[in-house]
Amino acid sequence: MSNRTKRFMLSEEEIPHYWYNIQADMINKPMPLLHPGTKQPLKPEDLYPIFAKELSRQELNQKDAWIEIPEEVRELYKNYRCTPLVRAYGLEKELGTPAHIYFKNESVSPVGSHKLNSAIAQAYYCKKEGVTNITTETGAGQWGAALSYAAKAFGLELAVYMVKISYEQKPYRRSIMQTFGAQVTASPSMSTRAGKDILTAHPNYQGSLGTAISEAIELATTTPNCKYTLGSVLSHVTLHQTVIGLEAEKQMQMTGEYPDMVIGCFGGGSNFGGISFPFMRHNILEGKKTRFIAAEPASCPKLTRGKFQYDFGDEAGYTPLLPMFTLGHNFAPANIHAGGLRYHGAGVIVSQLLKDGLMEAVDIEQLDSFEAGCLFAQTEGIIPAPESCHAIAAAIQEANKCKESGEEKVILFNLSGHGLIDMVSYDKYLSGDLVNYSLSDEDIADNLEKIGDLV
Amino acid sequence: MSNRTKRFMLSEEEIPHYWYNIQADMINKPMPLLHPGTKQPLKPEDLYPIFAKELSRQELNQKDAWIEIPEEVRELYKNYRCTPLVRAYGLEKELGTPAHIYFKNESVSPVGSHKLNSAIAQAYYCKKEGVTNITTETGAGQWGAALSYAAKAFGLELAVYMVKISYEQKPYRRSIMQTFGAQVTASPSMSTRAGKDILTAHPNYQGSLGTAISEAIELATTTPNCKYTLGSVLSHVTLHQTVIGLEAEKQMQMTGEYPDMVIGCFGGGSNFGGISFPFMRHNILEGKKTRFIAAEPASCPKLTRGKFQYDFGDEAGYTPLLPMFTLGHNFAPANIHAGGLRYHGAGVIVSQLLKDGLMEAVDIEQLDSFEAGCLFAQTEGIIPAPESCHAIAAAIQEANKCKESGEEKVILFNLSGHGLIDMVSYDKYLSGDLVNYSLSDEDIADNLEKIGDLV
Repeated sequence: MSNRTKRFMLSEEEIPHYWYNIQADMINKPMPLLHPGTKQPLKPEDLYPIFAKELSRQELNQKDAWIEIPEEVRELYKNYRCTPLVRAYGLEKELGTPAHIYFKNESVSPVGSHKLNSAIAQAYYCKKEGVTNITTETGAGQWGAALSYAAKAFGLELAVYMVKISYEQKPYRRSIMQTFGAQVTASPSMSTRAGKDILTAHPNYQGSLGTAISEAIELATTTPNCKYTLGSVLSHVTLHQTVIGLEAEKQMQMTGEYPDMVIGCFGGGSNFGGISFPFMRHNILEGKKTRFIAAEPASCPKLTRGKFQYDFGDEAGYTPLLPMFTLGHNFAPANIHAGGLRYHGAGVIVSQLLKDGLMEAVDIEQLDSFEAGCLFAQTEGIIPAPESCHAIAAAIQEANKCKESGEEKVILFNLSGHGLIDMVSYDKYLSGDLVNYSLSDEDIADNLEKIGDLV
Repeated sequence: MSNRTKRFMLSEEEIPHYWYNIQADMINKPMPLLHPGTKQPLKPEDLYPIFAKELSRQELNQKDAWIEIPEEVRELYKNYRCTPLVRAYGLEKELGTPAHIYFKNESVSPVGSHKLNSAIAQAYYCKKEGVTNITTETGAGQWGAALSYAAKAFGLELAVYMVKISYEQKPYRRSIMQTFGAQVTASPSMSTRAGKDILTAHPNYQGSLGTAISEAIELATTTPNCKYTLGSVLSHVTLHQTVIGLEAEKQMQMTGEYPDMVIGCFGGGSNFGGISFPFMRHNILEGKKTRFIAAEPASCPKLTRGKFQYDFGDEAGYTPLLPMFTLGHNFAPANIHAGGLRYHGAGVIVSQLLKDGLMEAVDIEQLDSFEAGCLFAQTEGIIPAPESCHAIAAAIQEANKCKESGEEKVILFNLSGHGLIDMVSYDKYLSGDLVNYSLSDEDIADNLEKIGDLV
């Protein structure tokens, strides 16, 4: 890594006071969420049985561009924010690129990822509305760890359904949740109807975010004074993550540069949207030409190879119908180690933006993601989460294009988390035990055909 | 945890320009290191075959209170320093203590611990003197991870001997070192005479820092252009760690308070000395009355139950003879999970200070350390390293005394690292699989008798 280090820092006073709601500025608004029975557009009150009321209102708010961050939430943000913006001189030098590469370092949070930004907000609103118990799903365990921290901070009881493959691959994220006092169950489990149904059909099913969501929603709706919370996909989650981009905007001003490209890894869209939307605002309102690139795993390519249609957010079909790019809610992703990216669909805002050409997507093979992660570790000194490795790989691809063209472009990506709890994955990569997964067009088409037209 | 959060932050410009060398201010200087053959006091040049020259000079420097930090080292410190000082309101509230508890958060470094402070400095001096290869030992793996990062930063090849029990208990710290490009071997190994000897005598020996040090020194002295580096015990390592206390001193000024007690966990003494010595300076020079408390594991109690005598720093007897509190260089510590504290002796400075009553020591049982760690995690949101749990347990003991007496004392402790890579240990604790280890006075006396009087 280079000895020449540059971090651009902001004090805690500069933590944003408002989240940015891009829905208000979008020319083509996201299409409405539909009630799965009536097929009618949802109103916030339709979501109250599942989510805290304020979160339900944020979810469907297409009017207010700025949503005030409660002071109690900002106080907990001060435990780790503002996070650093870093010029990746070491990586640039190693690549020999004329590009200027910056990353926003969300790995410095006490649980090691950006997930805390929304976990704190969701736990706060639940607590404020008198909720005592919350449920959630977690893939890699980053969201579950973050929510365990936030639930403890606000004195809420938390039950987590953790995707079985991650529960087994990443036992230490489970221990983190338990150390914070959460109850953790591997999903699919026999504790819910959704879990029983899929285990009956596929006894060895390794789980997916879609199934875990079904289980968590079912527990929330059948437990008194309990709400469900989600770590990505939904618009209110992405809203909370805009603190990342809003800080990065100020920090890019400190550098004297403005990003030509903004890159994030992509599972449901919250860290990608979090870093992108505050910059995309300038594209929409002022005609800036920044490119926004979502980096998804090649084995779960909803943005690059999925279909835009109404689909469920979960495997069992408990959620509203969402207008989104999807591989089908029954899609069973390959067992890649970036557990947080193993999700069949994309959030409704991001889906609309992709449809309208306001952003792009690229798919990254598993081996390429870890190669990029190791290069980043050795040049920048931070071992990235397997999810974040996808953003790094995409940034390296763009930096290499600049090397060929000789263009001195400014690349900004989000380092959504560190990989210190994912060393089992690196261990397997270094031992040559990881593979890529191929997915034929027929597989994708067949799967979508199975779910058919839901509206 | 409390929603009321307070971090005291310093900008990177405020990273100290000098390390503090307490040897210069000590009334009773540490007794000399002795050559094991001649029993004569060592001069710096006697250490040149093992250590970089500048590090050898720092080791024996009893004259200069302030040693300038090279600009290249400060540049890399900027990757993560200054680290936060945090008022632990959440912990205070949970304990119901009138004490004010502060901690210095060294866990925010990219490898998760304070070890980087000296790793960067040692790698820098080696590189500057034309060294190409370095060796070291590591217990829990925190030092090895830090040095792997630093070696890569300065383009040095690194070979690490990792204590076998940690190699097996903490495989992911091994993967971290390998991801940074280091070569890692479990110790004792068959690659050195020291390793072969102990494996011949005790085929199932689980290793100790003492043995791993012997192996690393042997490899360094038999490899061209290669130097040995150490993560604790030695005076130059503790010197580099004084950045912790020097920053904390400025940050305590920001709080308007001054510590009545400074607490650190204790393996060889570097994190304890690092946070303590800059404050102890005011005791020595200005008559301040701050108490300094080293928290060691009850199963490895060199400070509370060891003997002050000349002893070797390693198991095979390759090091100089050090005047120190020791359990005997042949002491085999119990397999506690705080691998970084499993060392038979204390650094020479700390040993002299303890002998002179300038500091105190307390021993902590393994179960008490994890209980304290879980309480800290749930109240402050950071899962502490098993080593750091000892400092937390000692701080809690003192805070509880304040509760009884009603005294509003100011307690400062060093959070030397986070435990995110030690979740296997928490997992075992939460499952009830951890135990305390008893050690009789006879065991200790027998062991010391075996090594006898070495001078």
